[in-house]
Amino acid sequence: MRAYDMIEKKKRGGALTREEIDFLIHGYVGGEIPDYQMAAWAMAVYFQGMTEEETGWLTMAMARSGEMLDLSSISGCKADKHSTGGVGDKTTLVIGPVVASLGVKVAKMSGRGLGHTGGTLDKLESIPGFCTALSDEEFYRIVNEVGICITGQTKSLVPADQMLYALRDVTATVDSMPLIASSIMSKKLASGSDAILLDVKTGSGAFMKTEAEAKALAECMVKIGKMAGKKMAALITDMDVPLGNTIGNALEVQEAIDTLKGQGPEDFTQVCLELAANMLFLAEQGTMEQCRRLAEEAISSGRALETFARMTEAQGGNPDVVHDSSILPKAAVSMEVTAEADGYVIGMDAQGCGTAAMLLGAGREKKEDQIQMDAGILLRKKTGDAVKKGEPLAVLYTSQEGRLADGAAKLLSSYRIGPDPAPARPHIFARIG
Amino acid sequence: MRAYDMIEKKKRGGALTREEIDFLIHGYVGGEIPDYQMAAWAMAVYFQGMTEEETGWLTMAMARSGEMLDLSSISGCKADKHSTGGVGDKTTLVIGPVVASLGVKVAKMSGRGLGHTGGTLDKLESIPGFCTALSDEEFYRIVNEVGICITGQTKSLVPADQMLYALRDVTATVDSMPLIASSIMSKKLASGSDAILLDVKTGSGAFMKTEAEAKALAECMVKIGKMAGKKMAALITDMDVPLGNTIGNALEVQEAIDTLKGQGPEDFTQVCLELAANMLFLAEQGTMEQCRRLAEEAISSGRALETFARMTEAQGGNPDVVHDSSILPKAAVSMEVTAEADGYVIGMDAQGCGTAAMLLGAGREKKEDQIQMDAGILLRKKTGDAVKKGEPLAVLYTSQEGRLADGAAKLLSSYRIGPDPAPARPHIFARIG
Repeated sequence: MRAYDMIEKKKRGGALTREEIDFLIHGYVGGEIPDYQMAAWAMAVYFQGMTEEETGWLTMAMARSGEMLDLSSISGCKADKHSTGGVGDKTTLVIGPVVASLGVKVAKMSGRGLGHTGGTLDKLESIPGFCTALSDEEFYRIVNEVGICITGQTKSLVPADQMLYALRDVTATVDSMPLIASSIMSKKLASGSDAILLDVKTGSGAFMKTEAEAKALAECMVKIGKMAGKKMAALITDMDVPLGNTIGNALEVQEAIDTLKGQGPEDFTQVCLELAANMLFLAEQGTMEQCRRLAEEAISSGRALETFARMTEAQGGNPDVVHDSSILPKAAVSMEVTAEADGYVIGMDAQGCGTAAMLLGAGREKKEDQIQMDAGILLRKKTGDAVKKGEPLAVLYTSQEGRLADGAAKLLSSYRIGPDPAPARPHIFARIG
Repeated sequence: MRAYDMIEKKKRGGALTREEIDFLIHGYVGGEIPDYQMAAWAMAVYFQGMTEEETGWLTMAMARSGEMLDLSSISGCKADKHSTGGVGDKTTLVIGPVVASLGVKVAKMSGRGLGHTGGTLDKLESIPGFCTALSDEEFYRIVNEVGICITGQTKSLVPADQMLYALRDVTATVDSMPLIASSIMSKKLASGSDAILLDVKTGSGAFMKTEAEAKALAECMVKIGKMAGKKMAALITDMDVPLGNTIGNALEVQEAIDTLKGQGPEDFTQVCLELAANMLFLAEQGTMEQCRRLAEEAISSGRALETFARMTEAQGGNPDVVHDSSILPKAAVSMEVTAEADGYVIGMDAQGCGTAAMLLGAGREKKEDQIQMDAGILLRKKTGDAVKKGEPLAVLYTSQEGRLADGAAKLLSSYRIGPDPAPARPHIFARIG
């Protein structure tokens, strides 16, 4: 076999065999196939696509390229969730404890954020002492004892995806549906859970701008997971406005804790309950209706909050954070951004809100940047709300006063105010399963 | 400027600016842009094409990437010719001397052959002592004194094309019209002639299998040359059968000498006269009719043969070769391949005939292979000819007897014999200018 022939075949619109895809991924990771051949192949894939079978084989070849987590030492059903990412997306911090408190194990590997705000790991690390760099043994032990553990992805997990993603990033081949789907799913398959729920975001703050694109990606990923023998479903959820009212690491942890107490914002609570119910359903905890009720009760009974506290303690953080908000870092400076006219918020650039939070210090522009855990934004008004001139749209937080002006300008330009209310958008568009 | 943005722009079907193309080629040759980005760009070009302007700019950027020959020390009009390559194509050996004998200067850089048979340089080197590795000064001096000199391409000529071609060769991006056209034309522009005639072959032995493809490539190259201020034309000529009756280096030199004496095969003589007339016409030696007559007279008067002899002498070879065929190497072994049935030759796989010659030793399979100058094929029958069972189709020549069986089998399978004569194909399909 020669990589050349596979590039040529894909260029002509042909479908590679399982053996050819294995050869390509194995050879790339082993250093026998050079970057320039993979780059040409990736660009050919951008134009010609891949069949469902090819995409599945690619995913499995990548998943097997490094260490595959063996969760067999963890008892019971293991459920995982993946979000395609968005602004203010702290759902893992709520639905993980909800699901775990009901006996379904959550052994979750998360990532860091590059771009607007931090990833789940960054958010958790805003709790003083919280450790996300665990050995496999510690990780398995905490999942068994607490029901949930959230750790960082190890370097040995899916090296093929790490290499291919870095290459795609510099060769303009990121935006290919089968390559996106296989990248995400290879990590999920290697992480070893039995049931995988996908949260595919759509809207101004999401990678998939339209509902149709989001659905296509969700369908592709659900098929890959089923091919690999996983219990799979996906929800298409809204990311046209930031999720919840907070953007920024410590602010989002506080909002997650509030939500676990039943005091969260309506949109965020609804999305969390529906995601949690779907994870429970995939883990065969009852009908969808029963699973929704279970999720609600996990919150109203305080059991989910208790699980969050136990997870925090097991991972080295102070469990009192669930009752004492002063444990989280607080920004030294704050500033209100106010409406410049009467009317209604008719739209928000969610991505712009995320960038505003980054400008305040909540995210990384470059990989090596340090995140300010206390920086971020509390939204007072979101799409659909009425506003009066001079009324606060949001409060900005940072400990570096010099960052306020840029953050405020960016946030203000992310709001669109009009004379009439905009039609409401659903929080959840569809379920693919 | 970032190479990434140019890949992305091309991927989306956009046209790069002249500055962007200069940046890309300059950066690639300078080592700042890596192979994997150029490979992704080349694949995007395969799918999205390039505008005429982009193709012209790319050609000029490549032509300027290394040494540009300065032919100003050579007096008079300098004419060049390029063939896209085929089996038995020894036209340069005839039309160069014809044109030069009429006062138009031919300062020609040629290549070696990889694949079926040798290139022009290999053919000339079958004349004992003939040297094709000349300094620029020797090259200019011989052109000035004799009117023609044929030398090898120097390493410093068009390094961008050398790098990009090597990359395309391993990333399945060779077959892109603008990349083919710019590769050929960058070398022609850097070689410095005023008038350039292109011989674009079409048929079973050519890179362009159909007349339409050949015309499109010819039109593209003629436009590039005109953009760069050159006098340009192209002929579309037949390569569905080998050109002339010989394939193989010394055999082809002998056939060229015969043709310069007016004793060449009809198809080869006609193609040579038409190419020579077109070169003379581009060099403004008269009307097309006058140029045809000039070319015929150059042969009938013996002046073209004399120029061939003087060029041979100036480049270190024995000029008596034009009268004494024993000077050329002769194969130790020969063998007839005979027809297996009565009928007509209704078609030939020209590429297959070339491969047969290679199997006899006339070409290189790998770059490092040594060519056998005496090996090759003399065709007794070509498409259109009537044959009787047992009658010779061709004579094979080699000095390594062990090569005969493979060569014979390959040649025989390249002939198609049928009961009725096939319709005749023209030798020249069209002129683009």
